[in-house]
Amino acid sequence: MKNIPVVMIIFGGSGDLAHRKLYPALFNLYEQNLIHDNFAVIGTARRPWSHEYLRGQVSDAVHETHDKVNENDLKDFASHFYYQSHDVTNVEHYVTLKKLAQELDDHYSAQGNRIFYMAMSPRFFGTIATHINDQHLTSTGFNRVVVEKPFGHDLKSAEKLNKQINASFKEEDVFRIDHYLGKEMVQNILPLRFTNPLIKNIWNPKSIKNIQVTLAERLGVEARGGYYETSGAMRDMVQNHIFQIVTLLAMPEPKDLSSTSIHKAKQELLDSLIIPDDDEIKKHFVRGQYLGSDSTFAYKQEPNVDKNSTTETFAAGEIKFKKGPVAGVPIYFRTGKEFKEKKSRIDIVLKHRSNLYGQAHSNNITIEIEPNMQIFITINGKKITETGIRRENLAYTFSKEEKALIPDGYERLLHDIFVNDSTNFTHWSELKRYWQFIDAVEDDWRKEDKTGNPQIAQYLPYRMGPKEASNIFETPTEHWIYE
Amino acid sequence: MKNIPVVMIIFGGSGDLAHRKLYPALFNLYEQNLIHDNFAVIGTARRPWSHEYLRGQVSDAVHETHDKVNENDLKDFASHFYYQSHDVTNVEHYVTLKKLAQELDDHYSAQGNRIFYMAMSPRFFGTIATHINDQHLTSTGFNRVVVEKPFGHDLKSAEKLNKQINASFKEEDVFRIDHYLGKEMVQNILPLRFTNPLIKNIWNPKSIKNIQVTLAERLGVEARGGYYETSGAMRDMVQNHIFQIVTLLAMPEPKDLSSTSIHKAKQELLDSLIIPDDDEIKKHFVRGQYLGSDSTFAYKQEPNVDKNSTTETFAAGEIKFKKGPVAGVPIYFRTGKEFKEKKSRIDIVLKHRSNLYGQAHSNNITIEIEPNMQIFITINGKKITETGIRRENLAYTFSKEEKALIPDGYERLLHDIFVNDSTNFTHWSELKRYWQFIDAVEDDWRKEDKTGNPQIAQYLPYRMGPKEASNIFETPTEHWIYE
Repeated sequence: MKNIPVVMIIFGGSGDLAHRKLYPALFNLYEQNLIHDNFAVIGTARRPWSHEYLRGQVSDAVHETHDKVNENDLKDFASHFYYQSHDVTNVEHYVTLKKLAQELDDHYSAQGNRIFYMAMSPRFFGTIATHINDQHLTSTGFNRVVVEKPFGHDLKSAEKLNKQINASFKEEDVFRIDHYLGKEMVQNILPLRFTNPLIKNIWNPKSIKNIQVTLAERLGVEARGGYYETSGAMRDMVQNHIFQIVTLLAMPEPKDLSSTSIHKAKQELLDSLIIPDDDEIKKHFVRGQYLGSDSTFAYKQEPNVDKNSTTETFAAGEIKFKKGPVAGVPIYFRTGKEFKEKKSRIDIVLKHRSNLYGQAHSNNITIEIEPNMQIFITINGKKITETGIRRENLAYTFSKEEKALIPDGYERLLHDIFVNDSTNFTHWSELKRYWQFIDAVEDDWRKEDKTGNPQIAQYLPYRMGPKEASNIFETPTEHWIYE
Repeated sequence: MKNIPVVMIIFGGSGDLAHRKLYPALFNLYEQNLIHDNFAVIGTARRPWSHEYLRGQVSDAVHETHDKVNENDLKDFASHFYYQSHDVTNVEHYVTLKKLAQELDDHYSAQGNRIFYMAMSPRFFGTIATHINDQHLTSTGFNRVVVEKPFGHDLKSAEKLNKQINASFKEEDVFRIDHYLGKEMVQNILPLRFTNPLIKNIWNPKSIKNIQVTLAERLGVEARGGYYETSGAMRDMVQNHIFQIVTLLAMPEPKDLSSTSIHKAKQELLDSLIIPDDDEIKKHFVRGQYLGSDSTFAYKQEPNVDKNSTTETFAAGEIKFKKGPVAGVPIYFRTGKEFKEKKSRIDIVLKHRSNLYGQAHSNNITIEIEPNMQIFITINGKKITETGIRRENLAYTFSKEEKALIPDGYERLLHDIFVNDSTNFTHWSELKRYWQFIDAVEDDWRKEDKTGNPQIAQYLPYRMGPKEASNIFETPTEHWIYE
């Protein structure tokens, strides 16, 4: 996919995401000849940078993420970058931006193709979208818009944002990005499920007892307390990453591997998503806040956090579908800050069967997304020196060499945007279902907040979240596999 | 099981098996307090050794197999050993032996318990059994006899030997030993099959395409050409080791783990063993003989081997059952000398399913018995940098520490004999089925020999046996997984 002519406008061009992820990813694509010659990138943000200054920043960003850099290539790459100081609420600035884009389009023969990348604070997404429309920033070629998470704050705000975006962009040109969908092990879920009779065979409610998804973070909110107060774990992690993973785990087999068929299969599943009622939320959901330690703040003591905050830094709960290959199977999730370690993993827990050897360990299939990329199957084998059975982990761990080959999620997804492959992006109709679910839980929690006695489990840092999360299961024999 | 009072008589007490296996195994049991105080061992053979000389040999045997030895324990252990020079065809010698056994029984308060261990050339088994009976060597306690392989040379001779043994011993007191049944990974087959829903689920003809058992030896016949000429790979390896493994793989689930229930389940399977006809043998069986290399003899050039020998040093074929969980599933076996490496392994090959990703690799479950003890499951995963799928091996490999814990097969099986557990020994009714099968193949090959044009594939050493072994499969898509 060489020479995709395009002018890309990055809103938030001086920001952290652009610096840490987008610029290095674009450079990697450039080095692989996956974008070339006929492209320009406009970085735009409030700060009064010059083109040269941005190019220096791009160069720094690449150096910071690469051990070895071809300096000539980098210089050439950086020369495609332009900076435009910009206040997203100021109409005039969009006019200037449009003019620069048009000039660069001419200069680079970009054939009127535009990619708009919203890489800044989500509260501006709607404003930007409206201005893109009102000031006619779209051009004569393709016009794609990339929207970072969170896409809205609840269903209502997401609907509003979507309307603002749809004024200028068709649904198929909207790339709602979730970098989890670019991760190697997440992209491995469908091949694992559909090419292995051994796994496909047990992917049903008869064999699977439950599925567990854990996205554990090591750190607290750090400097982001202000933003986090407007979000919480449900919106920050469940609404996007966890639901994307769960969708891949529970969706029916698509007709083929086209983006259309995959999204159709996802939608079929999501239309059967069970929205929990208050009673189910009380039984199967837990929210929590981390306490402090000698060297770390409790959440409520973090800068820019309300001392009476009810924002959850931990959430656990249950997701169930009426249809699909695992219809009715409980899918438990857990996510939060201040866990003992950073870990993203999926555990498929098979049902016990009584057996001749007395003990009943479950067979589990585990997909560790990070930090170690591995798949392991836990089975029973004989004990060596005594009678009885013990657990054996059959593991496939990615080697150093294999890991070195794996592109960053952003690199993969940016390439997908260039080649117009929307397989690994979130469709509006999927997102809607996710928000319906999140809203139900949030509504219940807000009601509880109003009673003056909200049930927010306080948990110690450097552990596995609140112990209350062990009580969300449907049956007493269920427990978290990763402990 | 401390203090099992017994006098054990080892026929072949100066032999290789006693030295390399039995004495070290007995010492290990002794060190674990699994035999103690009230036992005596009579080594008996032609050579005119003294008690002291045998004790020196026992001591050497222990030193040769152990890194560290408690010398006091060893001295004490060796003091239980006695030697009786003995010609197995001489009646008088049995009288002397009986007298010594009685004296030691008194001395050690062995309560009239006897174990007779036939650890010498199989051609004497019948004679020894007859003399034990005629000269009344059995005593007033338990009387058990341990018979090394081969148990007969064909069904007829096995029947004769069995009759000779049965004159003095009841079937439940006959321990037909096959050290493969003492191996860790062989003993792991039933736990793996019956405690893992993931595996149990696919253990049927709908899911399994075929099962492959390979017992590959690195070396040629070495100094044992004379013996080997009377045997060949079918009798030396298939009739016992391979059939034992196959039985464990194909038997139905026993009612419980008692020796009786396990043998009942085995018998149920073996009664449905399909005896191949000449046509099937031509299609699905291959025999071979190794050629020489710069530094090794061809089989026909080995010392004590007939220059026109038709004895097979390699055999491959197919075993099928009418009943059981894998009824009708082809179980292919391969065994022979002069392979590229020593390797005993089992591959369970699952049926392909067409899948969205185009390629069709099978899922395999592999149990490596030796030299590496491991279980691995081969599945498909996504390729990292391109589309499509690749194979991933999920492995459980025994650690050094685990391996160090594993007792030698003979240690396990000797202990089983002491405690009267016949689970891992071959019952007569099972053996009969094995011989029926072997006889059918041998008969066909003898007929072929008489045509003057026997089909014996000549194969190069240090490889994977004759290439003709790749043609024994039922369908063109089958192939050996271990290559």
